[in-house]
Amino acid sequence: MTAETAHEPQACNAALTRAFGFLGKRWNGVLLATLAGGPLGFAELKRGVAGISDSMLSERLAELGAAGLLEREVAPGPPVSVRYHLSESGTALLPALKALTTWAEDNLPAACSE
Amino acid sequence: MTAETAHEPQACNAALTRAFGFLGKRWNGVLLATLAGGPLGFAELKRGVAGISDSMLSERLAELGAAGLLEREVAPGPPVSVRYHLSESGTALLPALKALTTWAEDNLPAACSE
Repeated sequence: MTAETAHEPQACNAALTRAFGFLGKRWNGVLLATLAGGPLGFAELKRGVAGISDSMLSERLAELGAAGLLEREVAPGPPVSVRYHLSESGTALLPALKALTTWAEDNLPAACSE
Repeated sequence: MTAETAHEPQACNAALTRAFGFLGKRWNGVLLATLAGGPLGFAELKRGVAGISDSMLSERLAELGAAGLLEREVAPGPPVSVRYHLSESGTALLPALKALTTWAEDNLPAACSE
């Protein structure tokens, strides 16, 4: 695999650049990882993502929904209950996020990102 | 794994946020992926990373070196030849980058990052 990557760097890099551009955007990757355990409501998600504001969380959820990575489920009330869960595409990302998290814990001191 | 992630979202997210903050920074992740095939010189790296300027490439290489992800090797000349290769830590990232690339190719339309 490594030799092939070296021979066609452009094709490989286009997808990777897209992944980092999208998932690195503020809380996108972290929100998806937070939903790994199952559906969560807005307040639960907010607790799971330290430092995010209500308006930013709403914006990210809409963006991730538009990209097809999560789905919004509404349980009829009263009271109406809204929860978010990973789509098939979002679920497919979890192994990569897990690998990235493990690597960062082992190899990336906190100082590097600051 | 998913249940544990849900129970301790903060610890998991700190490392993931660090990973995306560092690797998503302009060309960092892509540069590491480009070095997957083996050591490359400056000009070869520049060809592998579309759109990067000389000064930006120098800056990124210095930053990745300072973070311990790649190493600079100088072959005594004349002419002196400088090449860059992944460190053990940088090499350990490749499976995660590969997983992320495959996911992006399958699940992230180009429009999402634009």
